[in-house]
Amino acid sequence: MTRYHAAWVLPVVSEPLRNATVVEQGGRIVYVGPRGSAPDGGEDVELGEVMLLPGLVNAHCHLELTAMRGFLDGLAFRDWIVRLTAARRAILTPGMLLDAARLGIDEGLRHGVTTFADTGDTGAGFDAMLERGVRGVCYREVFGPDPAQCDEAIAALATKVAEMRQRVTPLVAVGVSPHAPYTVSDALFRATALFAQQHELPLAVHIAESAMERDLVVQGAGVFAEGLRARGIHVAPRARTPIALLESLGVLQARALLIHCVHVDADDIGAIARHGCAVAHCPASNAKLGHGIAPLAALLAAGITVGIGTDSVASNDRMDLLEEARLATLMASAREARHDAVGAVRALELATLGGARAPGLANEIGSLEVGKAADLAAFAIPPHRLPVHEPVPALVYSLSGLPATFVAVAGRVRVRDGRLVDADDALAGRVQATADLLQQWLAG
Amino acid sequence: MTRYHAAWVLPVVSEPLRNATVVEQGGRIVYVGPRGSAPDGGEDVELGEVMLLPGLVNAHCHLELTAMRGFLDGLAFRDWIVRLTAARRAILTPGMLLDAARLGIDEGLRHGVTTFADTGDTGAGFDAMLERGVRGVCYREVFGPDPAQCDEAIAALATKVAEMRQRVTPLVAVGVSPHAPYTVSDALFRATALFAQQHELPLAVHIAESAMERDLVVQGAGVFAEGLRARGIHVAPRARTPIALLESLGVLQARALLIHCVHVDADDIGAIARHGCAVAHCPASNAKLGHGIAPLAALLAAGITVGIGTDSVASNDRMDLLEEARLATLMASAREARHDAVGAVRALELATLGGARAPGLANEIGSLEVGKAADLAAFAIPPHRLPVHEPVPALVYSLSGLPATFVAVAGRVRVRDGRLVDADDALAGRVQATADLLQQWLAG
Repeated sequence: MTRYHAAWVLPVVSEPLRNATVVEQGGRIVYVGPRGSAPDGGEDVELGEVMLLPGLVNAHCHLELTAMRGFLDGLAFRDWIVRLTAARRAILTPGMLLDAARLGIDEGLRHGVTTFADTGDTGAGFDAMLERGVRGVCYREVFGPDPAQCDEAIAALATKVAEMRQRVTPLVAVGVSPHAPYTVSDALFRATALFAQQHELPLAVHIAESAMERDLVVQGAGVFAEGLRARGIHVAPRARTPIALLESLGVLQARALLIHCVHVDADDIGAIARHGCAVAHCPASNAKLGHGIAPLAALLAAGITVGIGTDSVASNDRMDLLEEARLATLMASAREARHDAVGAVRALELATLGGARAPGLANEIGSLEVGKAADLAAFAIPPHRLPVHEPVPALVYSLSGLPATFVAVAGRVRVRDGRLVDADDALAGRVQATADLLQQWLAG
Repeated sequence: MTRYHAAWVLPVVSEPLRNATVVEQGGRIVYVGPRGSAPDGGEDVELGEVMLLPGLVNAHCHLELTAMRGFLDGLAFRDWIVRLTAARRAILTPGMLLDAARLGIDEGLRHGVTTFADTGDTGAGFDAMLERGVRGVCYREVFGPDPAQCDEAIAALATKVAEMRQRVTPLVAVGVSPHAPYTVSDALFRATALFAQQHELPLAVHIAESAMERDLVVQGAGVFAEGLRARGIHVAPRARTPIALLESLGVLQARALLIHCVHVDADDIGAIARHGCAVAHCPASNAKLGHGIAPLAALLAAGITVGIGTDSVASNDRMDLLEEARLATLMASAREARHDAVGAVRALELATLGGARAPGLANEIGSLEVGKAADLAAFAIPPHRLPVHEPVPALVYSLSGLPATFVAVAGRVRVRDGRLVDADDALAGRVQATADLLQQWLAG
């Protein structure tokens, strides 16, 4: 039993507590409340002038792309994603991908992320999550814009998923992800949704991210359409909107995690809500790539579950989920021209419980409640971020950007006194060497 | 003579340098270039794995409001500013205001800010800048929505400014600031602009910030108009736009620093450019208060000088100028739906040279060039922010949020190894005690 004492405890599901304690036993939370009433016994850990909260949930990332942090800065979206994918396939070996995923997890841990909803092509994120003792879901990607590739793609996916399922743990689960409308045929969307339902696998999909994607789906036009036609693939208008496409193909019916949802209208939002799908909101990536600002306030008003994701560090360029929560509230206020569009309290809920609900983990994580797993993150309040008037706004607006000082996953300490436990000091250097190879590829 | 060696040197006006050196002598930069060619002699300081750049310039802040960090979170704009002003006048003593300003400067220094364009009612920011050895301009505010108050207000301003001018130093200058259209009559705007020109003082004004301000100026309507009428002040439509108001009153002609400029149209932008006014862009504050996103790309396309400001920590809630630069580029890309609306290279230029140009300091600071003052800031590259592909995007997108590890103002070291030189360890506690008094006032 360990008694964690903190200047502030933020349970998310109830009011912040001053000078309070969270007690962990066997990886579970057994007490949250005033310090004076905490059960006796066990070890005392004085976290000091910190805010102690549930571990943050990153609702969308690409761990295996960490060596591409800031790679190809300044390219337009389609060029960027085509070059990125080509570079990954040409240069990155399994060892490089695994190192990149390890560094991504370490960065997340340094920022209080204990659960990673990772989308990846190679399984490196899955391996790294198992190794680093964090919680997560690895959505294994499947690609295939040509309908003729569909059966082969599903067979390959089934093999990969079967291999991963043999290694799942109580912390790390497996899902599938048909990548996006510009890389996945209608047939493959339909087949992947069916596969997910048959095997009871969570499903995630990049959708309604860009104007170019919308032009492809709605009109069969634009840069993605031209790219597909150049590869000999037939392109025609597919649906009223990207969300309508997913509904017509059974993907919403599989309760998909919908990544992005920038270009959605009222009917789309209704469909998302009706099917009980969750949304992964990635404000920094959406802004940086010039896609715009997703209608977060409208999604929440419709009762949709929303988690906050960083997306890959190729488009963000960091895994700092508190800062991402701040961006979510700032961008919502800017978009709606309303100071209270999505406040700090709601933003913190999205970065914890919202992200937990998306893959159905809300009984296990996302808040500090007795019986839940002891996934914890603490952020110090440095003197130059005082005073604190209200703790949750102070956390979201003022402590964001700073690293966590303490992090535990299922009771196991991963960050102590601001330092990563079990850090591999040579890791970042190896990932920089990979980046140098990518730069050579770019120049060559 | 001191030779500062860094993994990266970012001069802003020229390409980043790998493994390079900046040499300081007598408070000036005497060398910027490869380590191997640096002049001999003096002390060597190994800054290590950092990016060394010119000290950041905060183009708009309110140092004296630092005790109000996050105060009144969630109130609508007019209620917020009215309550904030009432609380300041009711509770904050000169000692409290000075402590708040000191903490604001310390926070800025921790984030690499060496120059503060401070706007304030009390002069506390001026006193604190002199004491803490930083560079800046203190724009002394003047208020008076009733034209009958004009002569008295100008007389009081003249007394305050005369007192401050006796204490100016090579680092700290004095300016004036007619606060905003909802607190300043046309007569007082005109008189303050004349006063500034007669005394050769820089002038700053909050303008085109909110829809409510626009409604007051254009239609004589809305919550600000109602508030003024309730005080017995005559309100009528005043101009086509807030910027047109300033032009009609001679304020643009005084080459004012225009703070905010969210609600500006093409004609306004033309007028700003024609009069050679600079803009202080405050993206976080504008977003948080629900005002929107200023048209940064259009301002820059018109050739207008733009600096980046944090605004007060009452509406931000932190003085983290690199993060503010990141927000400026992200919000510009989101607003324009273009990934390259305002890139990282431009954003860094705004946070340094742009801010320096605004009050006419670009010959002295804003870039690393021989002859300029040795205002320096270094940001460490932690392992979990590797790899670095391109240094400037890495700085703006990936190192933002983190504190500076080394800061000097005119060669005098203010932050060393991430720690503030001459820190007052009791300061933050005193400012928290002020905040607690503000909370009591709010509850009482």
